[in-house]
Amino acid sequence: MKQLAVIGLGRFGRSVALTLAKMGYDVLAVDTNEEKVNDIKDSVTHAVQVDAMDEQALKALGIRNFDVVIVAIGQDIQSNILVTVMLKDMGVKRVVAKAVTELHGKVLERIGADNVVFPERDMGVRVAHALVSKNILDQINLSSDYSIVELITPEEFAGKTLEEADVRMKHGVTVLAIRRGNEVIISPGAKQVIKSGDVLVVVGRAAKLRDLEER
Amino acid sequence: MKQLAVIGLGRFGRSVALTLAKMGYDVLAVDTNEEKVNDIKDSVTHAVQVDAMDEQALKALGIRNFDVVIVAIGQDIQSNILVTVMLKDMGVKRVVAKAVTELHGKVLERIGADNVVFPERDMGVRVAHALVSKNILDQINLSSDYSIVELITPEEFAGKTLEEADVRMKHGVTVLAIRRGNEVIISPGAKQVIKSGDVLVVVGRAAKLRDLEER
Ligand SMILES: Nc1ncnc2c1ncn2[C@@H]1O[C@H](COP(=O)(O)OP(=O)(O)OP(=O)(O)O)[C@@H](O)[C@H]1O
Ligand SMILES: Nc1ncnc2c1ncn2[C@@H]1O[C@H](COP(=O)(O)OP(=O)(O)OP(=O)(O)O)[C@@H](O)[C@H]1O
Ligand SMILES: [Ca+2]
Ligand SMILES: [Ca+2]
Ligand SMILES: [Ca+2]
Ligand SMILES: [Ca+2]
Repeated sequence: MKQLAVIGLGRFGRSVALTLAKMGYDVLAVDTNEEKVNDIKDSVTHAVQVDAMDEQALKALGIRNFDVVIVAIGQDIQSNILVTVMLKDMGVKRVVAKAVTELHGKVLERIGADNVVFPERDMGVRVAHALVSKNILDQINLSSDYSIVELITPEEFAGKTLEEADVRMKHGVTVLAIRRGNEVIISPGAKQVIKSGDVLVVVGRAAKLRDLEER
Repeated sequence: MKQLAVIGLGRFGRSVALTLAKMGYDVLAVDTNEEKVNDIKDSVTHAVQVDAMDEQALKALGIRNFDVVIVAIGQDIQSNILVTVMLKDMGVKRVVAKAVTELHGKVLERIGADNVVFPERDMGVRVAHALVSKNILDQINLSSDYSIVELITPEEFAGKTLEEADVRMKHGVTVLAIRRGNEVIISPGAKQVIKSGDVLVVVGRAAKLRDLEER
């Protein structure tokens, strides 16, 4: 079983630690702030109040033996960078660091961070897309051209079969699945009736999908 | 064309504003901080240094006529809440507010925010999942039971047809599409050969997919 440590229990670090713990992983949570440590201690394997800049304290935690360490320190860029270097020097195999700006991200890569994440920037992109495409619930971009999108059935399709709605022909998209409440219909046939409230999972060219989104 | 305003240009708000502007929308960006306003002013329609707690200043910006206003003020929960109330009182149709904690999120909903977002929490969940499932690139959860996942072909499948890999039978999952470089093969047949490096888009029960992820 993987052992993971999260250093810095802000909103992002706390969420990473809680999610990993819920999945059943062994999680060590570290913060200088006593309140943040207390808030999480019943939900993770270990939670300790330690300044990660203190190399001896980190070593005493046996951090070098962890499979993955996530450095989720935010505003204090200097600590974020120094702690990342220290962890790589100690021999931690995979260090994932949170970056505040693009430049900060580049520095983290150069000093050896194995992954650099930009939670606020990435979620900003997602939220912006969701705001302007009112029917889209989620999507996977397969290429710059092709996407799979999960969208709420446009009203004009309700009560029609897929054939009648002519989703494939007129719109150049293929319905891969239909979600109806808790039921999931995979690879629906041409005679399948679409109901109001159905969620359609469709694949197609981005331009064609945009047309569907805006109905 | 939709007009959108972003109040608070931290990492999240800045990213929302830049993404919307890149998509061609009319974007007003607001922050009390001069540097943040200057940093973004060449990339959005308008950028102004205004304290959003100042109702007269907000009115002078014609904010009530915007289609969507995103309140991306973070640490200062009081301002975040008061600005959200003020915008709804002015008649802004859709107000999207960033929440810091679950409780803060509930308060925002009660006072009329149309959408509440938790960027750090949500990205924490995503990053945690990505860290432990090494093959998974993206996913859409259709229900608590069913997911669509985009995953890197497990090595043992390379060179086999879908039938031989027996993806459907043995693993109880269906391959919806194969991404091979820029090419996308939709609804591949049983004779389709899987190549090393292919990205498979599969749908199935979460438990079955977990088995594939960990190969
Ligand atoms: N040297 C350190 N050792 C351990 N924890 C630290 C250290 N420096 C900062 N932290 C902790 O890291 C956490 C996250 O830092 P901060 O709040 O600055 O980041 P943030 O990017 O604004 O967080 P988020 O947006 O995820 O809420 C804080 O709880 C802070 O106490
Ligand atoms: N009353 C206000 N009017 C306009 N802007 C404000 C107001 N209060 C705060 N802001 C701005 O909101 C921005 C985001 O706030 P803050 O940095 O506290 O949030 P955050 O959640 O830590 O941000 P992020 O994690 O997205 O970087 C800051 O640039 C701040 O100057
Ligand atoms: Ca913080
Ligand atoms: Ca901030
Ligand atoms: Ca943040
Ligand atoms: Ca997704």
